[in-house]
Amino acid sequence: MTTYNINVTLSTAKKEKPQAEKLQFGKTFTDHMFILDYSVDIGWHDARIIPYQNISLDPASAIFHYGQSVFEGLKAYLTKKEQVLLFRPDQNFKRFNQSNDRLCIPHIDEDLALQALKQLIQVDREWIPKAADTSLYIRPFIISTESYLGVAPSTHYQFIIILSPVGSYYKEGLSPIKISVENEFVRAVAGGTGTAKTGGNYASSLKAQQQSGEKGYSQVLWLDGVERKYIEEVGSMNIFFKIDGEVVTPMINGSILEGITRKSILQLLRYWGVPVTERRISIDEIKQAYVDGKLEEAFGTGTAAVIAPVGELFWNNEKMTINNGQTGEVSQKLYDTLTGIQTGALEDPFGWVVEVPSIKYFSPIESQDMIEIP
Amino acid sequence: MTTYNINVTLSTAKKEKPQAEKLQFGKTFTDHMFILDYSVDIGWHDARIIPYQNISLDPASAIFHYGQSVFEGLKAYLTKKEQVLLFRPDQNFKRFNQSNDRLCIPHIDEDLALQALKQLIQVDREWIPKAADTSLYIRPFIISTESYLGVAPSTHYQFIIILSPVGSYYKEGLSPIKISVENEFVRAVAGGTGTAKTGGNYASSLKAQQQSGEKGYSQVLWLDGVERKYIEEVGSMNIFFKIDGEVVTPMINGSILEGITRKSILQLLRYWGVPVTERRISIDEIKQAYVDGKLEEAFGTGTAAVIAPVGELFWNNEKMTINNGQTGEVSQKLYDTLTGIQTGALEDPFGWVVEVPSIKYFSPIESQDMIEIP
Ligand SMILES: Cc1ncc(COP(=O)(O)O)c(C=O)c1O
Ligand SMILES: Cc1ncc(COP(=O)(O)O)c(C=O)c1O
Repeated sequence: MTTYNINVTLSTAKKEKPQAEKLQFGKTFTDHMFILDYSVDIGWHDARIIPYQNISLDPASAIFHYGQSVFEGLKAYLTKKEQVLLFRPDQNFKRFNQSNDRLCIPHIDEDLALQALKQLIQVDREWIPKAADTSLYIRPFIISTESYLGVAPSTHYQFIIILSPVGSYYKEGLSPIKISVENEFVRAVAGGTGTAKTGGNYASSLKAQQQSGEKGYSQVLWLDGVERKYIEEVGSMNIFFKIDGEVVTPMINGSILEGITRKSILQLLRYWGVPVTERRISIDEIKQAYVDGKLEEAFGTGTAAVIAPVGELFWNNEKMTINNGQTGEVSQKLYDTLTGIQTGALEDPFGWVVEVPSIKYFSPIESQDMIEIP
Repeated sequence: MTTYNINVTLSTAKKEKPQAEKLQFGKTFTDHMFILDYSVDIGWHDARIIPYQNISLDPASAIFHYGQSVFEGLKAYLTKKEQVLLFRPDQNFKRFNQSNDRLCIPHIDEDLALQALKQLIQVDREWIPKAADTSLYIRPFIISTESYLGVAPSTHYQFIIILSPVGSYYKEGLSPIKISVENEFVRAVAGGTGTAKTGGNYASSLKAQQQSGEKGYSQVLWLDGVERKYIEEVGSMNIFFKIDGEVVTPMINGSILEGITRKSILQLLRYWGVPVTERRISIDEIKQAYVDGKLEEAFGTGTAAVIAPVGELFWNNEKMTINNGQTGEVSQKLYDTLTGIQTGALEDPFGWVVEVPSIKYFSPIESQDMIEIP
């Protein structure tokens, strides 16, 4: 494996860490960040860890005008034995490059990205919260930074990683959410950017999300943009249903995001011998299964919540209550197993978790060390 | 009309102005910019003109992650009599707010925006190029600036206007472009963000644009995302065809951007008594008209090029040469009339142009004057 030189400048002033009970998702950031620059002449260069700080950009920078951005989201967990574990980070960086492709952004070196991430976590290791169900949320992202108003792929980019300690997604154990089927707005369509994790997809989802919130639902269930009848995904999660003993989830179709949690769940279910199918699922089929008493469970899957059981599904002015609004058996078992593996409490038969080796002391004074990590 | 107080800080160091022949689109910016801040607690506030400068943002700012951005594009022209004219700026700010709506961004006050623009142009008036066919390109835009990684409408925004002197779009008079019909990628679909001028739409267009460029075409002609057969628009332009004496253009359908040039052309053609229809147009119909020798003209319409005659249309490995690859009569007449009105050379029977009044001297020293403009 190539080792990369990452220049490290440590922060002299350390921020106060929030108390575990007060952790809010994505509002607090650690003391450092990783940055890598790109210019079309020299490629990716100048890998560095620096104190967390503002980015200064020309107002004509492409990111402000033409939305060329991609991001990823994953988590680091502290085990009981104080090891730091990442969950399938290779998958995130692979998807990152798939997103980059779609947006005409140059590939990053996935090994460098993983090494940079490990090293950044080592530097900010004290920021990983210890309380049960907490974690360190990791946000790698790329922005286009050329100062030019022409609609063209940018000639300059920055790849950045920031870290945010996050609390438990569920205050008191798994608790089902209510979601509403979206009939007016469309998230993505084949030939568009639905399979990429790019900013524009999230901006376009806000309006539906807002209207759903006003009706008392926490997320929307997206239907396909062509026939407006096939189920796609939920907010920032993929969706699964258990119908008459079989687990089903929408197939990869060129418009949904292929979640890493989704992928892992498919593998787990198959490992357990639970019947599971990836296929087209119409909203009418779900309704029919509900009417027939065969809609046994529904759950969203994603990095933030891991598993989000769906207790109520709203469609065309009708409410479908699923499993009496309670967390289903499969949902609970998947949640327990996945979070168990992620936090090191359960054995990992799939080779999913990756340990961030602990390293020696980072001097808390400003330094310009070249540090190589294994 | 309300007058707004806009705080003006003039730049002490003036940049060198590029020579007219060397002007490139969107690469050079004037000495000043306009900024207006928004926070959910106090609304839009702190309108100010300041020296053109970098923006400093937290790396967790929403704009870098969830693409909540909208923009506009329009031009100011210097007339032979040294008047400064804007072309239908009210329409741009109206569309701006329509885009804001779709992206859950708070409305701006359209009067304030226009006054701010006028005043910014007054401050940077010397930057408006004088040579024939040059203009000052105006880029108003909004970015989301809250430091928060949750997918939700941002609580903070900045509305910014920057100005860029631009050269002639055509080096030697109107010259037809070659475009290719896009079969793989989709720009937008009803229920998505196609009608809004938001960054994500442009990011998603780059890949098709790039592939089209590799085949020697300068823009792509988008088809609808549902049936993949109806014509939508071209790159950053709307599209018109003249078939058997009638001018046709795709109707407003929830996925194309309603161009202000398109709107103006429809008005002009109707004023002239030329038969014109807004309706669904399939690519097969265009092909058939071509085969029948009835495809007389095709042209794109947008702020940058005003009119871009289409000399060649490529679809499914076949080339359709339109009007022998020459600029058609209607295209030429529309171009001459529109640019004539825009530059003050022709009378404006529609009340489209808005003059930016010239004002007294702006002291070139740093100042904090409150200036009211009429
Ligand atoms: C649109 C969308 N779908 C699905 C997912 C789930 O993906 P993952 O399981 O990799 O977190 C996410 C979150 O990343 C998402 O944003
Ligand atoms: C996608 C798209 N369509 C059409 C247009 C033409 O609009 P207008 O005539 O207002 O410039 C533009 C340019 O603004 C555009 O970006």
